[in-house]
Amino acid sequence: MLTYSFTDIGSDSLYHHLYQCIKKDILSGGLPAGTKLPSKRSFAKNLGVSNITVENAYAQLQAEGYIYSIPKKGFYVREISDLIPPARTRREGLSEQDIPQKRYVADFVSNRIHPEQFPFSVWSKLIRETLLNRHEELLEAPPWGGILELRRAISNHLKEFRNMEVSAEQIIIGAGTEYLYGLLIQLLGRDKIYAVENPGYHKIAQIYGSNDVKHCFIPVDKNGMDVRELEESGCHVAHISPAHHFPTGAVTPIGKRYELLGWATRDRGRYIIEDDYDSEFRLAGKPIPTLQGIDRSERVIYMNTFTKTLASTIRISYMALPYHLLEEFETRLSFYSCTVSNFEQYALARFIEDGYFEKHINRMRTHYRRIRDELMAGIRKSPLASCCKIMEEDAGLHFLLHVDTEISDEELLQRAERAGIRLSSLAEYYCNPISDIQEHTFVINYSGLSVQKIPEVVNMLIKCILC
Amino acid sequence: MLTYSFTDIGSDSLYHHLYQCIKKDILSGGLPAGTKLPSKRSFAKNLGVSNITVENAYAQLQAEGYIYSIPKKGFYVREISDLIPPARTRREGLSEQDIPQKRYVADFVSNRIHPEQFPFSVWSKLIRETLLNRHEELLEAPPWGGILELRRAISNHLKEFRNMEVSAEQIIIGAGTEYLYGLLIQLLGRDKIYAVENPGYHKIAQIYGSNDVKHCFIPVDKNGMDVRELEESGCHVAHISPAHHFPTGAVTPIGKRYELLGWATRDRGRYIIEDDYDSEFRLAGKPIPTLQGIDRSERVIYMNTFTKTLASTIRISYMALPYHLLEEFETRLSFYSCTVSNFEQYALARFIEDGYFEKHINRMRTHYRRIRDELMAGIRKSPLASCCKIMEEDAGLHFLLHVDTEISDEELLQRAERAGIRLSSLAEYYCNPISDIQEHTFVINYSGLSVQKIPEVVNMLIKCILC
Repeated sequence: MLTYSFTDIGSDSLYHHLYQCIKKDILSGGLPAGTKLPSKRSFAKNLGVSNITVENAYAQLQAEGYIYSIPKKGFYVREISDLIPPARTRREGLSEQDIPQKRYVADFVSNRIHPEQFPFSVWSKLIRETLLNRHEELLEAPPWGGILELRRAISNHLKEFRNMEVSAEQIIIGAGTEYLYGLLIQLLGRDKIYAVENPGYHKIAQIYGSNDVKHCFIPVDKNGMDVRELEESGCHVAHISPAHHFPTGAVTPIGKRYELLGWATRDRGRYIIEDDYDSEFRLAGKPIPTLQGIDRSERVIYMNTFTKTLASTIRISYMALPYHLLEEFETRLSFYSCTVSNFEQYALARFIEDGYFEKHINRMRTHYRRIRDELMAGIRKSPLASCCKIMEEDAGLHFLLHVDTEISDEELLQRAERAGIRLSSLAEYYCNPISDIQEHTFVINYSGLSVQKIPEVVNMLIKCILC
Repeated sequence: MLTYSFTDIGSDSLYHHLYQCIKKDILSGGLPAGTKLPSKRSFAKNLGVSNITVENAYAQLQAEGYIYSIPKKGFYVREISDLIPPARTRREGLSEQDIPQKRYVADFVSNRIHPEQFPFSVWSKLIRETLLNRHEELLEAPPWGGILELRRAISNHLKEFRNMEVSAEQIIIGAGTEYLYGLLIQLLGRDKIYAVENPGYHKIAQIYGSNDVKHCFIPVDKNGMDVRELEESGCHVAHISPAHHFPTGAVTPIGKRYELLGWATRDRGRYIIEDDYDSEFRLAGKPIPTLQGIDRSERVIYMNTFTKTLASTIRISYMALPYHLLEEFETRLSFYSCTVSNFEQYALARFIEDGYFEKHINRMRTHYRRIRDELMAGIRKSPLASCCKIMEEDAGLHFLLHVDTEISDEELLQRAERAGIRLSSLAEYYCNPISDIQEHTFVINYSGLSVQKIPEVVNMLIKCILC
């Protein structure tokens, strides 16, 4: 019978020592595949240890796949090459996500706000006061929809700035719109087909895909989503951004909005998810009423986020549900806890109620308008003027730059990347091959640009495009 | 032809005024069902307005279901009773979620921490310093796994206090474990069958159900999940809490842990979700190594949360993925943004690194032990001693109280409710009928109790049970 010494095992436990001895013998070939191990009882007696010591050692060996058991017969050594699954070795260094991102001279892809733009002192003050004065409330689990004060503040804000009649109870707070999309799939149903915009924001389709939910890409033009294609697609839920389509910047006109509502009311179970992000930054023209505001049939779910208007520092989004969906949510999904920490909710409520949010939006709008105007002026005064056309510049935060060139999009993007400019082409946002994709059109998200850099950036663009 | 006046319409738009006039006539019966409306062009001419005004009015009426169109023929008034769907009226008052919760004399169901227990001053200081010193970092989008500093702090904490080898990059931060469960379903697959504990925490099964994912209830006894039933169930993923089973308080012994790992390695695609919540509050005995710590085959996903150990004020949880799953996550799911605000992540990182978290845990453990000991002593010195048995008192935060009585569970729970005591029975946590459910056993979660109230609460329990 196998024998191992239990002297000098230091602080190691008996079972672990035994486990290691046997494992070593298996790996060295001393115990070849198929060998029957001694019964627990006789092995324990022989080694002078308790049954449980042998039992635990065998259990660990079995758990790690070194031995297997045949009921009523005993334990046998496994063929080592059979060991499943091969454990990966630790990867060298950090994963890509944790390596600081490349610093571009200009990043026309990411939304970014500069520290001097964020109201740190006000935000700190509100957080401090919340932590000082709200001890009791901070430790209570919030309602599933979120802290009532915040939902009231949002309701008032929507009334005042978007002319929307949404009661506080209709509002559900969540940690980002991506999380809320996931809840909506659970609410509206995984059997529904979801219509997403083409071109569009890739993440929306990724989220439906990742949740194994059927989705169709419906063409979007200057007037928003194509309602005839939507009707023919058999989709049940249209996920759209009528106030500010990304990346084309198109604003869905009022007539088309009614057509979309008409589509939604024509059959039971049809809904529109109205993603109103960035609508606050519309730089020209009168704000257009939301679909939610003109919906009389409870077909529209309104969504917006503070992550874009404030900063990624504040991870708070919300949706407003029609009453019959709210009841359904309460019945089926209210077991989910609210995903935003109480104290952030209280601080944001104060931020909105005390008028800071409005001030911030106004300041940012002025700031973005200035960057946009100077960048457009820079381009128009430069040699680029003869070969570039700027489009959809009023939607806020980005415009389209069409270049009259024979250089391929790919080559132009590579040149920009080498020069330190992060750029994306309109074509990248199309999902299915569509015949009339506009080539040579680039999405210029200028939110992260500083005014000082504009001359340098325009010069770099000239080199990329004209050389 | 229809005629409406456009004088005195105030600030109303032309199309909206026209829409309201026609709608009024439809509702009053002036325009009965089936009436053909004038063509847009002739109606516009007749009214002296533009075609687009009539078009928008018709579009809104159509959107709201008052009229319908027959292609190439025109618009017709719909039968009003056909209008779909009937919009709900606004509900009276607030939804139930927003009505302040009933205050119990003692709430033995909810986790709650009292303001004097939460380290408000330290937390405020850390938040303040973060907001003061981290402007640049706070405005950058965090890596998808979360802020690296926090993940490093957690990795060190797990090494020091749970003897676990988890690298920072393996850790993924999320706004609550419920959110992370949703991500895991997307990672491991909706085609998998998930094993949940019976009895157990209802929410786990609700989340799988709400995501349309198959799940089985596998019996759990004093030694944790039944491995034979697990094997026979055909499940692929076992969702368990070996350190502290809720509500029985059972701790899965080491031998059984290896059996569970053995189950996981026996077939490809099997995983264990190890939910380690509350393990920090174990009140007696040596901490038992985690399954993750003894797993050599990358089969265990470890999860824990700060929402329970700190407060619902802080909505931060995390999971540690084995490397091969981390790679898969990066490929398929890293498009999701991290759901926790940057500044909370930085503050929590400091809270852990500077030793405050350890101090807090130790203080809370002492606090909970004192409440538990005094409550148990109060019961044992009272007339309840002769008919009550306390079980599983070491797991922390709750124990089981078995009552030798002929009163039904339901009647006892009602008596408690009337007396102002919120109580739950062990039987409530079973999902499928199981033959040997222990009746007359109650789950006493004492985390929200104050020491001062114990004599009063014991007296109330006496009245409920003995009268």
